[in-house]
Amino acid sequence: MSALILGVDIGGTKTAVGLADPEGRLLAREWRETAALGDGEALLAGIDAVIDAVLAATGRGRDAVARVGVGLPGTVDRARGALLTAQSLRGLEGVSLKDWFGRTIGAAVVVENDAGAAALGEYRFGAGRGARVMLYFTVSTGIGGGVVADGRLFRGSAGHAGEFGHQVALAEGGDPCSCGGHGCLESVASGPAIARRARRLLGESRGQALLALAGGDAAAITAATVAAAAREGDAEAAALWEETGKYLGIGVANAIVSYDADRVVLGGGVTHAGEWLLGPTRRHALARVMPRLRREVRIEAAALGDDVGIIGAVAAALGED
Amino acid sequence: MSALILGVDIGGTKTAVGLADPEGRLLAREWRETAALGDGEALLAGIDAVIDAVLAATGRGRDAVARVGVGLPGTVDRARGALLTAQSLRGLEGVSLKDWFGRTIGAAVVVENDAGAAALGEYRFGAGRGARVMLYFTVSTGIGGGVVADGRLFRGSAGHAGEFGHQVALAEGGDPCSCGGHGCLESVASGPAIARRARRLLGESRGQALLALAGGDAAAITAATVAAAAREGDAEAAALWEETGKYLGIGVANAIVSYDADRVVLGGGVTHAGEWLLGPTRRHALARVMPRLRREVRIEAAALGDDVGIIGAVAAALGED
Repeated sequence: MSALILGVDIGGTKTAVGLADPEGRLLAREWRETAALGDGEALLAGIDAVIDAVLAATGRGRDAVARVGVGLPGTVDRARGALLTAQSLRGLEGVSLKDWFGRTIGAAVVVENDAGAAALGEYRFGAGRGARVMLYFTVSTGIGGGVVADGRLFRGSAGHAGEFGHQVALAEGGDPCSCGGHGCLESVASGPAIARRARRLLGESRGQALLALAGGDAAAITAATVAAAAREGDAEAAALWEETGKYLGIGVANAIVSYDADRVVLGGGVTHAGEWLLGPTRRHALARVMPRLRREVRIEAAALGDDVGIIGAVAAALGED
Repeated sequence: MSALILGVDIGGTKTAVGLADPEGRLLAREWRETAALGDGEALLAGIDAVIDAVLAATGRGRDAVARVGVGLPGTVDRARGALLTAQSLRGLEGVSLKDWFGRTIGAAVVVENDAGAAALGEYRFGAGRGARVMLYFTVSTGIGGGVVADGRLFRGSAGHAGEFGHQVALAEGGDPCSCGGHGCLESVASGPAIARRARRLLGESRGQALLALAGGDAAAITAATVAAAAREGDAEAAALWEETGKYLGIGVANAIVSYDADRVVLGGGVTHAGEWLLGPTRRHALARVMPRLRREVRIEAAALGDDVGIIGAVAAALGED
């Protein structure tokens, strides 16, 4: 008898597999570069081998797995457990992972969009515990999100609810956005957008501390460089975080009043900047949320860190309240 | 045997009562100035008399009423059917209208916040029919709203979901807002805000057509004046609507991407401006919604007009899918 859950997080860059107990504690985890595993059937065979490695590390067999959760980077047909569209995973569109993992593992399978799975993970096991309406913002290469209300993922009309990064940050102009629009929150406050704003300082003969930290190579400046510079006391880097927090805080505030959320959880790689991002974001957001709602809401850093993909897949597999 | 529904819309200005069949068709309606009915118990006794008048007009008795829906301007304790807070209805806070109407009519009673009831009304009987996720914006003295998802009102953590008017419209500064903040969408695009922006033209020796339409009295300029001026070809008034549509369109776009809505319904008194408001709002909103979601969404004028309060209360009484 066992009730272990396998979490499979298939990302454009990295694919991770973990085995967890029903309380979301990881017994073992492994990851690989997705590109190294191949495309389509080869990718699935590669993941199968990673699953073997994870099970071997815990001394369990496939029969120990009661449920499988799979997180995917794109729009998911949940009934079939298949990707409808994915920019980053070639050869997997339309393939029913529900059937595939159901067959290879012999367990119940739930397939979920990665942002939705992460939101469920933070709600069930992380910084969203106890919330009635939790908004998850992931700030990374892009800005995405998910919404958990009364224990369930709120999906919207076609599974895209929580596209918080495509709120309008700049009423006029602004940089082109990955969505095809311009001036979206993602185009000013994602990791690449922060780096772009940092590089623009160079054209004004500013940002020399940032340039030095990037080894003199402007193209090597990232959001992590801006965080490092801020930690070293660079005022220009601190101002970039303040501005980022203003944009992101307004986006968070808009989402809070639209959803009447009592919790916002900020995750994604850019949150490695810690208080440089979280502090200004929280301050600007709370300043702009209507007073009646401000009292009830908490804005927190994500708790699951780099395991959010696996734990999110596990939470999806455990189902919704 | 009967299955008629009594809709009672108690507003800060106007109180309306209607009797409807289960398809939302009104058999009769009456309204009174709320202030003329009095406060607290006097108000309830006054409403009781209006109910008698409505029933008399249809030749029915109280036994013909199977359900009662009540819409209230403020936060509602739905279990008790009572107002938790109301700026505009003295003496009614905490009074269980569920008990009161249950006793006087002898029927099942549902009490709902007015914006939520209006959203349910448009969803069930109006411009929201067939939507999976419908956002209702009411543009009036303030800007409020409601959300219906999969046939149910989405309420948020404490019943305030859909406070779209308190999204940030101006990142810096802006006029004070009724919520205690500043620069909210409501503070630039509500009826009074449109009038305020119109009056500001006068200080720049502009807006003379608007002033003339208001009989030379700047204080008499309202959003209706701006609509009338635009209809007469006044370019300054047209520009005010264009700007209003830009603000409102951005707020609508932000709400669409946050909820993945497939329908937005615009109601409230300011929509009497017709295409002057709806046209620019729709154009700006669709221009700013990410392309993937733009294809699926429709932005429509509310269909229930001045009856939305009564029909919304009726829809609330009929329950949620």
